[in-house]
Amino acid sequence: MRKFKVTFLPDGKDIEVEENTTLMQAAGKAGVYVNTICGGKGVCGKCRVQVINGKAKADKHAIALLTKEEIDDSYVLACQTRVQDNLEVVIPPESRLEAEQILLTDSFVSEAASVESAHFEPLVQKLYMELQEPSNEDNIADSDRIIRELKRKTKYNAYERSLGCLRELGSKLRNSGWKVTATIARQNNGWKILEIDTGDTNDNNYGLAIDVGTTTVVAQLLHLQSGKVIGGEGTHNLQSNYGEDVITRIAFACGKEQGLQELHKSIVKNINDLITSLTDKHGIDRKDITAIVAAGNTTMSHFLLGLMPCSIRLAPYVPTTHSFPQIKAKEIDIDIYPEGILETLPDVASYVGGDIVSGVLACGIAEKPEIKVLIDIGTNGEIAL
Amino acid sequence: MRKFKVTFLPDGKDIEVEENTTLMQAAGKAGVYVNTICGGKGVCGKCRVQVINGKAKADKHAIALLTKEEIDDSYVLACQTRVQDNLEVVIPPESRLEAEQILLTDSFVSEAASVESAHFEPLVQKLYMELQEPSNEDNIADSDRIIRELKRKTKYNAYERSLGCLRELGSKLRNSGWKVTATIARQNNGWKILEIDTGDTNDNNYGLAIDVGTTTVVAQLLHLQSGKVIGGEGTHNLQSNYGEDVITRIAFACGKEQGLQELHKSIVKNINDLITSLTDKHGIDRKDITAIVAAGNTTMSHFLLGLMPCSIRLAPYVPTTHSFPQIKAKEIDIDIYPEGILETLPDVASYVGGDIVSGVLACGIAEKPEIKVLIDIGTNGEIAL
Repeated sequence: MRKFKVTFLPDGKDIEVEENTTLMQAAGKAGVYVNTICGGKGVCGKCRVQVINGKAKADKHAIALLTKEEIDDSYVLACQTRVQDNLEVVIPPESRLEAEQILLTDSFVSEAASVESAHFEPLVQKLYMELQEPSNEDNIADSDRIIRELKRKTKYNAYERSLGCLRELGSKLRNSGWKVTATIARQNNGWKILEIDTGDTNDNNYGLAIDVGTTTVVAQLLHLQSGKVIGGEGTHNLQSNYGEDVITRIAFACGKEQGLQELHKSIVKNINDLITSLTDKHGIDRKDITAIVAAGNTTMSHFLLGLMPCSIRLAPYVPTTHSFPQIKAKEIDIDIYPEGILETLPDVASYVGGDIVSGVLACGIAEKPEIKVLIDIGTNGEIAL
Repeated sequence: MRKFKVTFLPDGKDIEVEENTTLMQAAGKAGVYVNTICGGKGVCGKCRVQVINGKAKADKHAIALLTKEEIDDSYVLACQTRVQDNLEVVIPPESRLEAEQILLTDSFVSEAASVESAHFEPLVQKLYMELQEPSNEDNIADSDRIIRELKRKTKYNAYERSLGCLRELGSKLRNSGWKVTATIARQNNGWKILEIDTGDTNDNNYGLAIDVGTTTVVAQLLHLQSGKVIGGEGTHNLQSNYGEDVITRIAFACGKEQGLQELHKSIVKNINDLITSLTDKHGIDRKDITAIVAAGNTTMSHFLLGLMPCSIRLAPYVPTTHSFPQIKAKEIDIDIYPEGILETLPDVASYVGGDIVSGVLACGIAEKPEIKVLIDIGTNGEIAL
């Protein structure tokens, strides 16, 4: 298959794509965001761009939606135009998804951290322990020795173990002189031992809180030992290339083979990119991120986990689930600590998602006797009373 | 690397191996069992074989352990002799692991089945359900609809879901006209939904009970819907090529890089071979085996799960664990239903394993007021009072 180079101006970003790729797809691959309210159906006309070098023909949608002058000036619709030449394309201001200012609530962050410190109990904890060596009088199994110490150090009673944490356990204990760190994760009604490290790795434990918005994705990095917020980072939701609103994206996911996969992979890429950027900036190893908590509206949470969202769009508006299982982050190719977990906040209803749930929990209005209102003014709006 | 052909007589089995492979390893690959009490150290002299065609030299161990006549008759030790020619090798009767009669307790089987039928509650169950389609009055999420029906049909209350069972759930429910089968597994204190199938697959649900003995491995196939035993099959433990007793095998596993892996893979191969043989014989799809319960002594259970057994051998005789986590069978490459589970019975002590535990449970002496004795006469012996 032939390949062509497409350069997007004024960004100056270029990308090589296969023949017949749409300009919209090429822009997405180049990391350039083009407006598309209709999700690429050629009916909204918001994605018009000007081809200043190379051949590209206006199609019937462009002829219906653009003026004669625009067509004469080589304007086309990015979603309808297939690349069949090397092109230079100008994206006019009105067709750009502006680099909006993404809200990173630094002031709120520090306040939240201090609020939480009173009862800060992270999803994944690391506990350093110096164990007594086995003797004839105290010859319980290695894993029982770990669990006995965990019960002494914490108030939790139920401990599950992964096969991974039992493998090599014997040599880790003996090679470290019985000084190890247990990584434990809250799960259902108990705790699970994810891994045993040799020595004290207590301090290398970070968590990520992610707001999966329809338009933007924002992540905050926390040091789980101290509860301190290390930093925040935001970006456009890459799914914008498939439509601005959830309904258009559901239609895309359910109308096309691999459609759901494309949207799922977009959000996973967003999250991996945010992790790269945050860990680079703060000099942290991404393998030390042990837990992610994500909140989004019902549809975004479905996309995040790769669940079919089709029936959310049609009466009686039924999602696959309102509560999401705890998974290993690597199950959906999120690149952190290999045993690291991902939890997604539960929804209240098909159009009242985990994002508003997290808002209500974080600001504490659920625990206050007065009647208060929380208004989430996002791509869609919700009010909690 | 050069390759040579080795033919074992009187079986007539042959195998092509790389230069410098020992005759003992070649025999193992050809599926011929040679006696080796010392586990291949060249000190017991039990593995002497006669090379009747091709060149093979007696080494210093053979010279010390064999008579001059034997050496003149081209006898060598299989564990010390490396293949450097095409060979024909006779295994004399005293060096063979005889094809002992492996105990397949058919009569016990049918009795056990009838005993169990009174309170037969398998580890993995399938439940067929015909659900009401969602309406505006009843628009709970798809997975909540499944769980509501499961709670109606069973007495269990806690249901976890895997990410896998939620993927495609929406389309499975709608494409099947809301007629599906849930596969659920007992786990910790609740149940987990492993998968949802379209239509009624209730009847395709088999389980395997495996006795992992030091010398032999025996499997029984059960139909989990009815509790009926379909058949049994036994074989030599392939680990015999690494030593006859658990101490020799622990020494092998812990004395050599990849030693543990070799022993672990041997027992996994044993089990996969037994599954092939049982499913072929009874015309069953191995993907319909949803659960395996294994019992073995402490060392065998460690080998089965790939856990380090080294400290079991030395005072104060501490194993990695006495209770084993429930795992997915595919985690250790056992080829059944992809979501199928494997449970290993817990041990009592380092030298009192899950095999005797299963014996005590199966024959019911734990529940009887009289004092009774169970004696397990195996490669090692145990008595339970």
